[in-house]
Amino acid sequence: MLKKDYCALRPPMGWNSWDCYGAAVNEEQLLGNARYIADNLKQYGWEYVVCDIQWYEPKAVSNTYNNFADLEMDEYSRLIPAVNRFPSSADGKGFAPIAEKIHNMGLKFGIHILRGIPRQAVHRNTKIKNSSRTAREIASQYSLCPWNTDMYGVNYRAEGAQEYYDSLFELYASWGVDFVKVDDIANTEFSPNNPYSAREEIEMIRSAMDSCGREMVLSLSPGPAVVSEAFHLSQNANMWRMTGDFWDQWDKLYDMFRRCEQWADHVKPGCWPDCDMLPLGKISKTEGCHGEKDRYTNFTRNEQKTMMTLWSIFRSPLILGGELRENRKEDSEIITNSDIIGIDQYSSDNRQLRRTAHEAIWTCLDRDSNRVIAMFNTSDREREISINLEAYGFNGNYSGTELWTKEVCENIQGDFKVKVPVHGVKIIRLKKKM
Amino acid sequence: MLKKDYCALRPPMGWNSWDCYGAAVNEEQLLGNARYIADNLKQYGWEYVVCDIQWYEPKAVSNTYNNFADLEMDEYSRLIPAVNRFPSSADGKGFAPIAEKIHNMGLKFGIHILRGIPRQAVHRNTKIKNSSRTAREIASQYSLCPWNTDMYGVNYRAEGAQEYYDSLFELYASWGVDFVKVDDIANTEFSPNNPYSAREEIEMIRSAMDSCGREMVLSLSPGPAVVSEAFHLSQNANMWRMTGDFWDQWDKLYDMFRRCEQWADHVKPGCWPDCDMLPLGKISKTEGCHGEKDRYTNFTRNEQKTMMTLWSIFRSPLILGGELRENRKEDSEIITNSDIIGIDQYSSDNRQLRRTAHEAIWTCLDRDSNRVIAMFNTSDREREISINLEAYGFNGNYSGTELWTKEVCENIQGDFKVKVPVHGVKIIRLKKKM
Amino acid sequence: MLKKDYCALRPPMGWNSWDCYGAAVNEEQLLGNARYIADNLKQYGWEYVVCDIQWYEPKAVSNTYNNFADLEMDEYSRLIPAVNRFPSSADGKGFAPIAEKIHNMGLKFGIHILRGIPRQAVHRNTKIKNSSRTAREIASQYSLCPWNTDMYGVNYRAEGAQEYYDSLFELYASWGVDFVKVDDIANTEFSPNNPYSAREEIEMIRSAMDSCGREMVLSLSPGPAVVSEAFHLSQNANMWRMTGDFWDQWDKLYDMFRRCEQWADHVKPGCWPDCDMLPLGKISKTEGCHGEKDRYTNFTRNEQKTMMTLWSIFRSPLILGGELRENRKEDSEIITNSDIIGIDQYSSDNRQLRRTAHEAIWTCLDRDSNRVIAMFNTSDREREISINLEAYGFNGNYSGTELWTKEVCENIQGDFKVKVPVHGVKIIRLKKKM
Amino acid sequence: MLKKDYCALRPPMGWNSWDCYGAAVNEEQLLGNARYIADNLKQYGWEYVVCDIQWYEPKAVSNTYNNFADLEMDEYSRLIPAVNRFPSSADGKGFAPIAEKIHNMGLKFGIHILRGIPRQAVHRNTKIKNSSRTAREIASQYSLCPWNTDMYGVNYRAEGAQEYYDSLFELYASWGVDFVKVDDIANTEFSPNNPYSAREEIEMIRSAMDSCGREMVLSLSPGPAVVSEAFHLSQNANMWRMTGDFWDQWDKLYDMFRRCEQWADHVKPGCWPDCDMLPLGKISKTEGCHGEKDRYTNFTRNEQKTMMTLWSIFRSPLILGGELRENRKEDSEIITNSDIIGIDQYSSDNRQLRRTAHEAIWTCLDRDSNRVIAMFNTSDREREISINLEAYGFNGNYSGTELWTKEVCENIQGDFKVKVPVHGVKIIRLKKKM
Repeated sequence: MLKKDYCALRPPMGWNSWDCYGAAVNEEQLLGNARYIADNLKQYGWEYVVCDIQWYEPKAVSNTYNNFADLEMDEYSRLIPAVNRFPSSADGKGFAPIAEKIHNMGLKFGIHILRGIPRQAVHRNTKIKNSSRTAREIASQYSLCPWNTDMYGVNYRAEGAQEYYDSLFELYASWGVDFVKVDDIANTEFSPNNPYSAREEIEMIRSAMDSCGREMVLSLSPGPAVVSEAFHLSQNANMWRMTGDFWDQWDKLYDMFRRCEQWADHVKPGCWPDCDMLPLGKISKTEGCHGEKDRYTNFTRNEQKTMMTLWSIFRSPLILGGELRENRKEDSEIITNSDIIGIDQYSSDNRQLRRTAHEAIWTCLDRDSNRVIAMFNTSDREREISINLEAYGFNGNYSGTELWTKEVCENIQGDFKVKVPVHGVKIIRLKKKM
Repeated sequence: MLKKDYCALRPPMGWNSWDCYGAAVNEEQLLGNARYIADNLKQYGWEYVVCDIQWYEPKAVSNTYNNFADLEMDEYSRLIPAVNRFPSSADGKGFAPIAEKIHNMGLKFGIHILRGIPRQAVHRNTKIKNSSRTAREIASQYSLCPWNTDMYGVNYRAEGAQEYYDSLFELYASWGVDFVKVDDIANTEFSPNNPYSAREEIEMIRSAMDSCGREMVLSLSPGPAVVSEAFHLSQNANMWRMTGDFWDQWDKLYDMFRRCEQWADHVKPGCWPDCDMLPLGKISKTEGCHGEKDRYTNFTRNEQKTMMTLWSIFRSPLILGGELRENRKEDSEIITNSDIIGIDQYSSDNRQLRRTAHEAIWTCLDRDSNRVIAMFNTSDREREISINLEAYGFNGNYSGTELWTKEVCENIQGDFKVKVPVHGVKIIRLKKKM
Repeated sequence: MLKKDYCALRPPMGWNSWDCYGAAVNEEQLLGNARYIADNLKQYGWEYVVCDIQWYEPKAVSNTYNNFADLEMDEYSRLIPAVNRFPSSADGKGFAPIAEKIHNMGLKFGIHILRGIPRQAVHRNTKIKNSSRTAREIASQYSLCPWNTDMYGVNYRAEGAQEYYDSLFELYASWGVDFVKVDDIANTEFSPNNPYSAREEIEMIRSAMDSCGREMVLSLSPGPAVVSEAFHLSQNANMWRMTGDFWDQWDKLYDMFRRCEQWADHVKPGCWPDCDMLPLGKISKTEGCHGEKDRYTNFTRNEQKTMMTLWSIFRSPLILGGELRENRKEDSEIITNSDIIGIDQYSSDNRQLRRTAHEAIWTCLDRDSNRVIAMFNTSDREREISINLEAYGFNGNYSGTELWTKEVCENIQGDFKVKVPVHGVKIIRLKKKM
Repeated sequence: MLKKDYCALRPPMGWNSWDCYGAAVNEEQLLGNARYIADNLKQYGWEYVVCDIQWYEPKAVSNTYNNFADLEMDEYSRLIPAVNRFPSSADGKGFAPIAEKIHNMGLKFGIHILRGIPRQAVHRNTKIKNSSRTAREIASQYSLCPWNTDMYGVNYRAEGAQEYYDSLFELYASWGVDFVKVDDIANTEFSPNNPYSAREEIEMIRSAMDSCGREMVLSLSPGPAVVSEAFHLSQNANMWRMTGDFWDQWDKLYDMFRRCEQWADHVKPGCWPDCDMLPLGKISKTEGCHGEKDRYTNFTRNEQKTMMTLWSIFRSPLILGGELRENRKEDSEIITNSDIIGIDQYSSDNRQLRRTAHEAIWTCLDRDSNRVIAMFNTSDREREISINLEAYGFNGNYSGTELWTKEVCENIQGDFKVKVPVHGVKIIRLKKKM
């Protein structure tokens, strides 16, 4: 294992502001959700509180970006929190006060950044810390994010480029940041001929993080990252997205099975292909995004369990997306099932056994080396899903417990058949009988 | 014919500053070459004097662009000449004084622009004339020129977009501009999925030009434009490039035969597919560009004749690229052959008869309806090229005159064979014997 | 003009068996439709009678091909008519008796072939006439038609390849064939990386036709041919398809406007880009193909006029597709309008003036040099279409006659407005008032 | 693990006839090489003797295929050995006598097939065993191998398709075949839009193999297979090619490092991504193929070691390609190094640590759980390659043994530096000092 892997020996768990607040989250919302986690979720493993995109944009009000907006920036071309949204950041304190409060709750603090240097820094030609070069000199002029106008990419060949990234992470370390989600950097499927050198920017960020003096998780977005880049990603990052943005839509959840199949062999401690945030509970509070504004997740109860189960048996990071303070009892149940979370955090030998257009079967060993089988019904009607346990080498006689319902079933061996509801899952822990 | 066609009833002829001065031409050079044309070339038909790219960039010194350079701009987001390079433009006079001098020489004046609105206008959020909208509101944020950082494309759906283009041409008309070469707009082959809407920007420019109160030739660059867009181009422009930038390299000249074949049927009065500037005489004065700095053209004498002949029998615009004041006697001869220029300006029934990897044969009728045959040797050794005149319906007995050497050959009929040197051409005017 | 152009100085007009009988036409049907043409349509210019695909397949019964069917073939690997379908072809007479009968009616006879050599000849390794090579030696092993299993392409580099094509056209000339439609050869858009050398097979066919001793029209299918190949096509063929198969569906007719725009500049005597057969009257008699079996055309009356008008003002070949003997009065009217047919056969200066998503305007000069304007409404509601005649240089005062209704309108000048029904057309001949 | 995995718990090792005899190997050569293996190589683990392509083609004489050749075939459309090349197969015995002899040497026997059904069976319309359907009815008419004319693909939707494949493997089982290399089936990178359904043909073959009553290794060719298909491949096959055909050329060997990086996570017992045959010793005996005819491998001694080391530390199948009876002492040394072969057969935790344009570093644990490090110099000059062992968690003090030279080096810890020759490798077994 590499040194960078030690801060993410298990899949990171936490909360991110995007699904509920888009680009517009503020200090009260951030700390309010942190408080909720500390009080209700920390005991299950949830710990990161991540402030998503454009915390430096004073006028952000929703998921939609204001093109060419004026951004808060320090003298060294570094973006800093908008004081109107994050009052404690005034007087150059940045995110340090918020990070401290979150740390005091026993949690960890994360931020989002876009790769690159602000376009406004380039056009104003501002300074780079610890370099005689300027913003204009390190920008990669044709390297743009295809969905946001804040940044130009950084030209890794330019003198001053590494110094710029170093100065960013020096600042984030001084604030007490534990987790950085870098965006516009992992979507290699989007445009293979893209002139920007994502590979090189990833390496500059890795290097800056390694030398900043503070341990941080590195998360790359958006996907889809390509499987053939798995080695490079695993050398540099702790998690990376396998798909575009995930929302509470069945077609996106259905497609995740294909992605998990492709990435399953690349899941390792410190290296977690990422299924993206869990759009559970109350989301889209500032703008209807892939659904109505201010809605509870469109996923059915069965789909929610399918999602949590797939993320867990695949060992994806688990990052909540909803406004936690509006969670209902049924929302809480989905995210506080210790058995399921335990699969995510402590299982081994995770792999898909079979996948068709209508069903998928996964397996793993749980923390106590019990065989676990998850049968997913991805079709539009109830199905009996069957598996011949011996065909996969699972011989013997078992007693089984379904991990969502805790229902018990005895005398399992050979052909094992389970009725699974539409878009639902049964995940059964098998204990071998002696 | 459309109204816009009347200002270009014959292929435009003139001079452009790019091949010799790149982005760095100045007032003295512009007027010096104009003077040379008035004194030496006007009688042959050469008339446009065109100032190429970045006359608004004070620090331009060569063919290489300074990324994110600060540009001279008026209060309405319109670029204006850099006074340090064009002193007569001081006090808001723009190109009017230069245009006037050129007009007084009996010549016409042209400028180059890049489609779009200056990035600096967008980031400074400056005004649009006759509109309540601002630069930021009409920019198309992901529409970039792939080789220059000056502009963002203009979003044709935005209010204020047409007003911006109208304000540009109002200004150019007030200066006395006769010819506008719009760049970054015709290369539809480069990137079919490009998000910028070149079609719509072309139409906005056409509309602005039509309503500006002054007749101007509209030239679109760079190529390759695609043949399937020929109708749209012919409805809106007077000339458009068929290839990327042309330089004094045989492979580029060789490839032009293929392009001329594809575009030949689309050549019409007012609508001239463009073979690009003629890199003749002294070129690359500020920087070695596709060859050594400050060189005389790398084309051999035969290649120069091939180029002039192909451009003419195809009826391309003829735009000189060299520093004319350094022309030698042999350079002048190539561009003052009235027979060849007459083919370009007055011929009809122009078409290719045959093309192989090694030769090409073109024909036309000259001003006096004499049949003209051009035999090009595009191979690397001397060849005898033959054509059966009767196979193409050219019956009878002819007397022939080669238009470069004026050599005469009698008794031509049926199989007609001519020795042509490497990369050279014989262009023969046939007079029918009664 | 090339020699090959003289047999098609005007767009070919006639009938083809595909739209009504698919691959299954027989002698009675062929001669019956010929008789109908001689009696009813010849006076309007209709003259070719073309037997479409698979006349060599004894078991063909519809538009669907039998994969790997056993085909009628002579000893020289040449396909010959199936005697069960064409009884007069018995005893090695081939199509000669049918051709003779059609010639005796004052009409011309055409056949369809697929480029290539029968796969069964290759696997049986049969002989090539006038060559010591065999079928196996000239086949291009990876060159397949993507929709029919009868043939392999011919490898133009192989000895015996030209001899094979020569032997085909020698046979067709001996039968008295006047028109050959070669299929699987013009669809260069379909697969740019296709290993087959359509260019070379076209040239072999041209050469075989030139030396066969009989004048024949060469028609290439299916489309879409690509515009950048226009020169090569015009050097070798008389007509070539611009699209895939055309049927009585509005979307296909709508799309034809785009194709006609792209090809308009390439229309010349002897060289006719082809809009494909006219699916008028009774079609699909053996199998429901792009509509119900045994149906009258799905085109509305207005769409039929739009089609005939577009084909004519573009100067496409006109080839009828229906079972003519079932024509109703209204079907006959569409195809016996001498004014419209005259536009197709004798007009000049044909060109599109404007095209939007909702309308298209074309113009030409008729036989007597009167200006003709066709206003097409391609939208889904009635529209008033207007054109400023002076903007296009059509000055003066005109009297107009609509060529379908013969309605007269006086005093036309400047802005000219016409109400046009949904999917319909008004085509007006303008006579200038003195 | 699946049942199909048990016959390939370790990477298969053996010999294949292609690199030396192309399509032309005969019985004497096959048995001669088998004898050589039994006498000299079996003790090192080499055991499979595989007869490559076109053993059913009587006239095959080299690596080049005779297009549309007549093939030996039984009444059920199944190809059988050409008796002139494999005399013992006479009287319908097929490969049974050869298999028996090879089994008696203590070795295993393999054959090559092309997916699909013989084109000659389709055109002759021969029978399918245990089905009322015929060859013509199960062929997929547009599914062709792009480099050989023997077969059409099989349409998995057709009745009779599975029966055909079942009948093939029933025959092979009756012969005593232990290994089947199926060709034209794994190159999904070649043509993503290819109409043939390789996935479905792979599944039909898996099913036929499972039900044939004999355990066989399934090997798929040619590559490159795509990484995103890893799950499907691992569910159905035992080995599959990661690249196109491999030959003794440095660029191909250099490229294999990239492929091994991409596939490393997918290597598992029973599922072996395949680097292809080892072109060692005397190859190309019938025809110069990617080099001179009848040559000893063009790989330098260092390149040979690099190849054997990479194949082994990646755990590729090891299949020899040369005529073993012409092996020289130095050829034998490369393939009889028990340490290296032991890495291939028994190592674990295999993975790449680093790769640049100039070097690659791999590691694994050997059979005794000693850490092994391989340092490859892929550049064109001698290099010192260094690795910080602690950065990868390899703490402590080691004694090292280079596995090719057996040189010993003491006191290895922290920064470990090794000089490696051009295109060469050092592979060091580290024993931890207590």
